[in-house]
Amino acid sequence: MAPIRIMVVGLGRAGMIHVRGALDGSPLLALTAVADADAARAEDVAKAHAGVRPFASAQAALAADEKEDLFDAVVIATPTAHHVQDIQDSLRAGKPVMCEKPISFAVADIDSCYALAKEQKLPLLCAYQRRHDASFGAVARSAQAGEIGTLQVVRSTSRDNPVPTIDYLKISGKIFHDCGSHDIDMVRWVLGEDPIEVHAVGSAFNKDIAALGDWDTVVMTLTFPSGAIATIDLSRKAVYGYDQRLEVLGDDGMLQAENRQPTSVVRSTGAGISTDPHFFSFPQRYKETYFEELKHFGRVCRGSEAPMISHKDARSVAIIADAAERSCETKVSVKIEGLDVESS
Amino acid sequence: MAPIRIMVVGLGRAGMIHVRGALDGSPLLALTAVADADAARAEDVAKAHAGVRPFASAQAALAADEKEDLFDAVVIATPTAHHVQDIQDSLRAGKPVMCEKPISFAVADIDSCYALAKEQKLPLLCAYQRRHDASFGAVARSAQAGEIGTLQVVRSTSRDNPVPTIDYLKISGKIFHDCGSHDIDMVRWVLGEDPIEVHAVGSAFNKDIAALGDWDTVVMTLTFPSGAIATIDLSRKAVYGYDQRLEVLGDDGMLQAENRQPTSVVRSTGAGISTDPHFFSFPQRYKETYFEELKHFGRVCRGSEAPMISHKDARSVAIIADAAERSCETKVSVKIEGLDVESS
Amino acid sequence: MAPIRIMVVGLGRAGMIHVRGALDGSPLLALTAVADADAARAEDVAKAHAGVRPFASAQAALAADEKEDLFDAVVIATPTAHHVQDIQDSLRAGKPVMCEKPISFAVADIDSCYALAKEQKLPLLCAYQRRHDASFGAVARSAQAGEIGTLQVVRSTSRDNPVPTIDYLKISGKIFHDCGSHDIDMVRWVLGEDPIEVHAVGSAFNKDIAALGDWDTVVMTLTFPSGAIATIDLSRKAVYGYDQRLEVLGDDGMLQAENRQPTSVVRSTGAGISTDPHFFSFPQRYKETYFEELKHFGRVCRGSEAPMISHKDARSVAIIADAAERSCETKVSVKIEGLDVESS
Amino acid sequence: MAPIRIMVVGLGRAGMIHVRGALDGSPLLALTAVADADAARAEDVAKAHAGVRPFASAQAALAADEKEDLFDAVVIATPTAHHVQDIQDSLRAGKPVMCEKPISFAVADIDSCYALAKEQKLPLLCAYQRRHDASFGAVARSAQAGEIGTLQVVRSTSRDNPVPTIDYLKISGKIFHDCGSHDIDMVRWVLGEDPIEVHAVGSAFNKDIAALGDWDTVVMTLTFPSGAIATIDLSRKAVYGYDQRLEVLGDDGMLQAENRQPTSVVRSTGAGISTDPHFFSFPQRYKETYFEELKHFGRVCRGSEAPMISHKDARSVAIIADAAERSCETKVSVKIEGLDVESS
Repeated sequence: MAPIRIMVVGLGRAGMIHVRGALDGSPLLALTAVADADAARAEDVAKAHAGVRPFASAQAALAADEKEDLFDAVVIATPTAHHVQDIQDSLRAGKPVMCEKPISFAVADIDSCYALAKEQKLPLLCAYQRRHDASFGAVARSAQAGEIGTLQVVRSTSRDNPVPTIDYLKISGKIFHDCGSHDIDMVRWVLGEDPIEVHAVGSAFNKDIAALGDWDTVVMTLTFPSGAIATIDLSRKAVYGYDQRLEVLGDDGMLQAENRQPTSVVRSTGAGISTDPHFFSFPQRYKETYFEELKHFGRVCRGSEAPMISHKDARSVAIIADAAERSCETKVSVKIEGLDVESS
Repeated sequence: MAPIRIMVVGLGRAGMIHVRGALDGSPLLALTAVADADAARAEDVAKAHAGVRPFASAQAALAADEKEDLFDAVVIATPTAHHVQDIQDSLRAGKPVMCEKPISFAVADIDSCYALAKEQKLPLLCAYQRRHDASFGAVARSAQAGEIGTLQVVRSTSRDNPVPTIDYLKISGKIFHDCGSHDIDMVRWVLGEDPIEVHAVGSAFNKDIAALGDWDTVVMTLTFPSGAIATIDLSRKAVYGYDQRLEVLGDDGMLQAENRQPTSVVRSTGAGISTDPHFFSFPQRYKETYFEELKHFGRVCRGSEAPMISHKDARSVAIIADAAERSCETKVSVKIEGLDVESS
Repeated sequence: MAPIRIMVVGLGRAGMIHVRGALDGSPLLALTAVADADAARAEDVAKAHAGVRPFASAQAALAADEKEDLFDAVVIATPTAHHVQDIQDSLRAGKPVMCEKPISFAVADIDSCYALAKEQKLPLLCAYQRRHDASFGAVARSAQAGEIGTLQVVRSTSRDNPVPTIDYLKISGKIFHDCGSHDIDMVRWVLGEDPIEVHAVGSAFNKDIAALGDWDTVVMTLTFPSGAIATIDLSRKAVYGYDQRLEVLGDDGMLQAENRQPTSVVRSTGAGISTDPHFFSFPQRYKETYFEELKHFGRVCRGSEAPMISHKDARSVAIIADAAERSCETKVSVKIEGLDVESS
Repeated sequence: MAPIRIMVVGLGRAGMIHVRGALDGSPLLALTAVADADAARAEDVAKAHAGVRPFASAQAALAADEKEDLFDAVVIATPTAHHVQDIQDSLRAGKPVMCEKPISFAVADIDSCYALAKEQKLPLLCAYQRRHDASFGAVARSAQAGEIGTLQVVRSTSRDNPVPTIDYLKISGKIFHDCGSHDIDMVRWVLGEDPIEVHAVGSAFNKDIAALGDWDTVVMTLTFPSGAIATIDLSRKAVYGYDQRLEVLGDDGMLQAENRQPTSVVRSTGAGISTDPHFFSFPQRYKETYFEELKHFGRVCRGSEAPMISHKDARSVAIIADAAERSCETKVSVKIEGLDVESS
């Protein structure tokens, strides 16, 4: 079977991870086009790999594809503000789409993108890469399979490393949407239900972050219809490496996904026993995970798998992140409402 | 120097731990009297050890001591309802007192006990044993010493094993006072400040616990003047062993006190790599800790150390536990007020 | 710069690892030809990837290349008996060669291959993949850098999983050459010196292995001029996963490379605390390692790096493995002689 | 039941550990007498604890006991050169004896002590404390119970910290007897059989140790009738803490007893993830172990348990340590002969 020919638009950090994934030698995928508003960047990437065509935008690539049949599917890794346009143009051109999270900060836009995908009968996959992580996946599947009985407490920890640049933070959508959305997706996934209410508190130890009206340190508590409680603890700074952990307590046991280190070296001296810092940041920690995600997208394109993230997932996460942000601002718990896709 | 002669009143689980501690061969301490409302129990304990006199109550022991000079200090491990009487009678008899936490559920009673101790110029030590744990202590001291920079997030986890009996739960003062007070003490200790506000949510998965109007699973969030946030996660059930962890995030690193296992055995088979369950429950986990606590009390009696837990500590913990319980009941965050000892 | 075009001959387990490595998207490498005595297999592999030409032997591929300029370098992963012919034909055709260890069981053949490479001024890289492993490499570099002072004891453990097939074992060259050569290479590398003497004992718990006159369980002790002692412990069976560990004791500390698991999941139940089994076998454990090795070969082809394994390394390992096998058979320690390349 | 009244002779490090053990509050044991050639030391120890009588020698204590009935059993922790006399005098006085290992460096003396014990119908317990360690015990019992199938490889590692004083090393009996005897006992215990042959190599990196004709670093290999192979790796120096590990490979899995740290604190910084050094030395690592050993002796005195270490165990260890030392000196493997007690 011929590989799915991929066009990646947006050649920043996430985009380049997908470029490498599409080049990874899997018979499922082939990279045949790249696009970036910085046309020179797209050309450099194309030059390094035979058979890859560069473009200055998703739209330019789609136009060329119409005439020359260049690619089968689109991976979108542009800044969030461009997502809706790129998604809609790609869907209209008949291409399945994988888009970096979030589809949009606006629920209405999320809904309109999925409505178009439904109309076009094409898959739209919102990329929450942690769903494809071997460790988080094992925890989620074991929890859902009843391995630890009734699920009672979920803890998700995400601490960034290094602190993002202020330029990035300005367009990040703030910590609840930018970081917290991953954790909100995780706890919903593990528990298989949506929260009733969210409470959040936050601090900004970093003055630049405070000046943006954003937070660098937050704790959220979510309560669920089953009685389960989730707590999410986020930070923009973890000098010991990218810190991403998940813990689930059930009445028959506990499941944890711990951090990992680049090597298995143990150094023992008079000062103590030490191992490496954790993986430096997301490209290292989630290297395999991103590739698994892209292969999942390949299988979604082929029709052999349904998208791991549904319309309801994508919009629920946005609504909950919003509610958490409001709780943090108003210092009262916020009820979660309007999650039903039908009501959209 | 002669050892401090100890009288232990209340020969339940905690009391017997102190009995064994006082017998542990340290030249600092000697057990010379025990008391229990079940006089036969006191006699059995006394019989097993030369030089130990049995009594049916603290009051009977104090009366005998007045005539015969039997002991120098009193360790109180009776049910909480008896604490105030036993503390006051002991202090009035001129004895330094160590009392299992809490002094009382009522702040006014805590205040009156400490007022009496002040008047009598005698130490009153409220026993929060985790303060004497080598691992928690190392974390607290390193955090306070600035080893990880500005303190930002504290997480304290306490999960009981096995689930206490309903008889115990009825007199326990409910989960916030019974369990949570330890964690509240820990986060105050680590951060060196008192919280501004507390938010708590709780569930009762266990029907017997629900019937008591109590919770078996709670998550608290505390915010502090410095911007630090603490989250406390409690459960009455952890089938994998007594689970007691502490984590502190600072802008220069993270400190964690992890659980421990009875042995260092690693078993590797086709099914995975496994170690022992954690220590079964508090007597195992805190064996050394309780003994360190008792030796601290010995040094407090000698005047060479100040009590680790002050009047302010004991009453702040009670006030905060109360506020957390109210937050859980009312589903709104509760401001922490009235912590100032002078205001008492 | 154009990628190094690779021809892989021998499409068994090791060969397919190199096929995937050469396809891995690195701009350094490209797979353009494959060869296998089973021509249909070569065709299948070629069919799955655009631009890859299939052949029935290294010789057929070299003949085609002479006319059509198909590849720049050769990776040999045929059975050991074919190595010398394939190496010599490739070198004579002007191709740099990477060959799976061992070059040959016969020292004279090793010498003649390297002599030809020298004459042809082409690199010949014997593939001991563990040299490229991040963990073993970190241990070796730290040890050599003096991080733990004078090196005193090295322990290398290699336990296979699953037990190889009897068909493989028959042509494996027996455990000292097949498995032990990796560990011998490692301890020489870490210590930076050659041993004086080797002692080995072995058992064959598996009757099929005993029937081959081979061993499944051996322990070697090597002594070095510096006073350092190395112990190597090999087994053909480790049901808990592929077990590959390295430990170095110095007078200032210890360095260890421990095993790794596929996920970071921790499962805590009443039965204990458990993690995954170790990686199943060498393709999983050394996935990244093999790719690093191939990229090293790419850089060797470009002339930007010298081969990690020299002629002296390859022949010393063969001589020492031979001496260990003799010690095991004769039950006396065997002196290591004739390591000097000049003497060859 | 009245406690066993213990007299401890030899108030050095090991003796004081037993003094504290006998004072540990167990109803099984009571300390009633101590003896040391340094009479002032014995007096100081006695003064600190009510009811303890000091003596200048075991013989003086036994003489006083004859008149005054002071103690029931004797614990011997004098230098090895005094063991035989102290054991024989105690046995002749009708006292059960626990003696620090080794009974003697001379097999004939070991035999004569056990012969006297047999004649007197009194227990003589040679103290190899690791037999009572929770972790080593769990490994040994699991291995013997068939939990990992046929036992194939045993690895025992013992690395001292800190380096003993030269004064101690002079009377230590050299590394094979002083340290190695523990490991020899362990591997015999785990495997339940005696070795056929031993091979040993050694180095002396420390010049003072070299000057004594002793070694500071040795590796032993022992082969057993079942085909099992044991390797023992000893060092006098491990700057990262007292390093004592045991590993057993069977065809169904692996069991390991790993080192432990004083606390469970994990420190994560940019430099890596670190824990405490291992326990500093044997008094810390084996604190509980020594106490378990003493309680075992108490039960042996009562007749409720047989001694963990038999006459055959004590003499086999001495013979094997001797053979290992000879192998190290002569550089040839040495057959193990004369282990049969009946042949003594």
